[in-house]
Amino acid sequence: MENLDYKFDFRDERNLSLVMDLYELTMSQCYFNDPDANSTVTFDLFYRRNPDNGGFSIFCGLEQMIGYIQNLHFKDADIEYLRSTNLFNEEFLDYLRHFIFTGDIYAIKEGTIVFPNEPLVRVKAKMIEAQLIETALLLAINHQTLIATKAHRIKLAAQGRNVMEFGARRAHNFDAAYYGSRAAYIGGVDSSATVFAGQKFGIPIVGTMAHSFVQSYDNEYEAFLAYAKNYPNICTVLLDTYDVMNSGLVNAIKLEKEYLRPNGYHLKGVRIDSGDIAYLSAQIRRVLNENDMQDTKIIASNSLDEYIIKSLIEQGAQIDSFGVGENLIVSKSSPVFGGVYKLGSILKDGEMIPKIKLSENVEKMTNPGYKDLYRVYEKSTNMMRADVMSVHGEVLNENEDLTIYHPNNMWQYKTFKANEYYLEPLLQPIFIKGHLVYDVPTIDEIRKYREQQFNRLWPQYQRFEYPQIYKVSLTKNLLEIKAKLINKLKENNK
Amino acid sequence: MENLDYKFDFRDERNLSLVMDLYELTMSQCYFNDPDANSTVTFDLFYRRNPDNGGFSIFCGLEQMIGYIQNLHFKDADIEYLRSTNLFNEEFLDYLRHFIFTGDIYAIKEGTIVFPNEPLVRVKAKMIEAQLIETALLLAINHQTLIATKAHRIKLAAQGRNVMEFGARRAHNFDAAYYGSRAAYIGGVDSSATVFAGQKFGIPIVGTMAHSFVQSYDNEYEAFLAYAKNYPNICTVLLDTYDVMNSGLVNAIKLEKEYLRPNGYHLKGVRIDSGDIAYLSAQIRRVLNENDMQDTKIIASNSLDEYIIKSLIEQGAQIDSFGVGENLIVSKSSPVFGGVYKLGSILKDGEMIPKIKLSENVEKMTNPGYKDLYRVYEKSTNMMRADVMSVHGEVLNENEDLTIYHPNNMWQYKTFKANEYYLEPLLQPIFIKGHLVYDVPTIDEIRKYREQQFNRLWPQYQRFEYPQIYKVSLTKNLLEIKAKLINKLKENNK
Repeated sequence: MENLDYKFDFRDERNLSLVMDLYELTMSQCYFNDPDANSTVTFDLFYRRNPDNGGFSIFCGLEQMIGYIQNLHFKDADIEYLRSTNLFNEEFLDYLRHFIFTGDIYAIKEGTIVFPNEPLVRVKAKMIEAQLIETALLLAINHQTLIATKAHRIKLAAQGRNVMEFGARRAHNFDAAYYGSRAAYIGGVDSSATVFAGQKFGIPIVGTMAHSFVQSYDNEYEAFLAYAKNYPNICTVLLDTYDVMNSGLVNAIKLEKEYLRPNGYHLKGVRIDSGDIAYLSAQIRRVLNENDMQDTKIIASNSLDEYIIKSLIEQGAQIDSFGVGENLIVSKSSPVFGGVYKLGSILKDGEMIPKIKLSENVEKMTNPGYKDLYRVYEKSTNMMRADVMSVHGEVLNENEDLTIYHPNNMWQYKTFKANEYYLEPLLQPIFIKGHLVYDVPTIDEIRKYREQQFNRLWPQYQRFEYPQIYKVSLTKNLLEIKAKLINKLKENNK
Repeated sequence: MENLDYKFDFRDERNLSLVMDLYELTMSQCYFNDPDANSTVTFDLFYRRNPDNGGFSIFCGLEQMIGYIQNLHFKDADIEYLRSTNLFNEEFLDYLRHFIFTGDIYAIKEGTIVFPNEPLVRVKAKMIEAQLIETALLLAINHQTLIATKAHRIKLAAQGRNVMEFGARRAHNFDAAYYGSRAAYIGGVDSSATVFAGQKFGIPIVGTMAHSFVQSYDNEYEAFLAYAKNYPNICTVLLDTYDVMNSGLVNAIKLEKEYLRPNGYHLKGVRIDSGDIAYLSAQIRRVLNENDMQDTKIIASNSLDEYIIKSLIEQGAQIDSFGVGENLIVSKSSPVFGGVYKLGSILKDGEMIPKIKLSENVEKMTNPGYKDLYRVYEKSTNMMRADVMSVHGEVLNENEDLTIYHPNNMWQYKTFKANEYYLEPLLQPIFIKGHLVYDVPTIDEIRKYREQQFNRLWPQYQRFEYPQIYKVSLTKNLLEIKAKLINKLKENNK
């Protein structure tokens, strides 16, 4: 059953197949026992709000989603456990024993700038297969998209300065630490302190010393010297164990003059982890420069996030590199990415019948149907102008005018003139009939693509706070289908 | 090298050894190259603030910490990766290749009510060994303690009503989903939707149906009927796919009368996942009762947390069971548990020399030394009165008066009269010389112990908001050591 010939293999060493909500299995047994109900369906994974009220998110986690699907099968121990719940019959358990995913999955490429309410992942599969992958798809995408988006905000706030991810100890467990490092690197940070993230994903890793290191030597200078002897060409010392200006910095300069320079080296950096960072960094810079140490970098850590970094820079802090921990690795100010997975259509008599989920709240109404998604670029600038969802297979001709509609309002629309725009299909084939067909990019390719994407976004959408809302719209065809469905459902409920 | 004879084995299938900050390794090489610096030390893991401004936390994650230490070794691939960083010499890499943890670890039992600034875990080991386990210890304890504490708050708000953990899809990746379920169960929730958590930890699992299930049938009644036929004795239906009162509830009652009752069954529950839950639940209860369905439970979900649950109950909502997702599994309102790991003492000339970390902020000053921790109970009531840290080995005699001191203030103290109190040592031996000596309790024992502990806490500390601050204090001996160290360090910095 296991196919070991994957060109790309992102399976986990663990068997995580049962990391699913029980209802995926209880519903599946109903479908199994009633084959008419186990029709081919489409589901869309989308989200409704950007973290931190930002203007966009960075799509991330696809590679891990691929790994889950490659790995998805039920071992004897899983079947045994499911049998013990007394919820399932032997026929269904036997079906699970031979289960593999055989559906089609299209998804946006990792590193893409994405917006609320558009499909990030589109699954077309038998109902059971589409349902069994729901929980894992959501958690993989929700987690990494959250962290990539936060990392991007932080890196943006640093205005080109170096940013390091330091968060493992505050992450929500092991996966969150190292997949969080991956997402943070894709989102824009330059390196991670987590060794495993370096080993597994090739992310540059960094690290200096802890306060305990300085404390464990008889005095601060001895600690610095011991470190410098081990790492003369990458020596960075921690200044705030005792007193930044009166002890740490004095010993750092002594180290430079008495050990590093005489041996042909140079102090690479100093780190401060407490106190008034704006003030201290300026004082440190001045003293370092007075001692001919213009090249020694100043690194700051201590509960930093994008707001504090922005403020520090505005205050003229002299910081070359930021170490960011808990506020990045759990996205503390906005720790939930609310991706959802909703039924789009069901095959009936050879036709994909669109489905909609109504809600008292217009914003929570889904966009129905088996849909495609395009990004509209302006030809003269190559800049992103809008995204548009269409009915799957609907032909959009760049030689004709394109009118796109607000998802809930026929009277709000915008027309792009023929030949003044071009379209990019955002949903790429990942699995076709269960086979991985996607040429998985490297992490550095993803990171570079994220940067290219971002450069094609007008500044009003990039804005840190109160950004302009980017248009995620529907074709007229799709909007009409939506309107009909709503009217029909309202009619039925009268 | 691998000892497979563990009585308890909580090792992960993965090799997570390198989930550590790079500086643990760079510092370790310094210690390795300077054996004098690789002295025996003690470290304390403690935290400074309770999540959500609560009065206490629930200690959790010890079992996973044990697993990490049991598993901690560096495989060839790890050594290869470390070599590729060009940071380490071959002697140190060879040392790592044969590394096992050989130190002593004492910890508080899982499920214990804990408070800021007291040692939850105390490590006594060679500096390298103590340092290499830092990151993993912190992330295991930080994550699960956070979620157990949040779960306890939510369960408390529900005032005895059933609470189910529904959060996997919003968790920060796989570990956070299933270790989060474990912690939530220890903290007090009754069950989880995550199948893997049931399989791995024996937590009761629950699940009903999704909106997509109802949508996938021609009409709502057919969907309910299909579900009832598969699960006649545990049938719970989702009411809000179309219209709670005019469709969902009508079909639920029809299901009861036309299918379940005639076949000797009864509708177990109805679930609402949107709308005005307080109002809807009261209406549903009334209609169910009018139809002789007093035993049918009402389940509510939809972005619930302890504050909303409290408010719903105050409003008279008729809810028997709460399904809680993202606000529990990421502890959204307070998503970081800030556990830290600080040097307490260093062995020098046969004596453990206490160490302190000063800070501009008095609250961030550490409590120095190789310490023990006791809980003081009032004999007449068996209620918890205070926790007290003492110098390791210091004898506290219950037949004598006990005076305990505020950690930063010699003038704030309290005396317990001889024979009116008794002491419980909170730090239990877990590893001695690297051997697991702890008789690891079952998850249900931990859960029960948590409940017993909580019942020994006076109501003023239990309070949901603005709780009284529980005393975490020092013996006079320890306070005097602390004062001396501070004075000496201040003297040196003059």
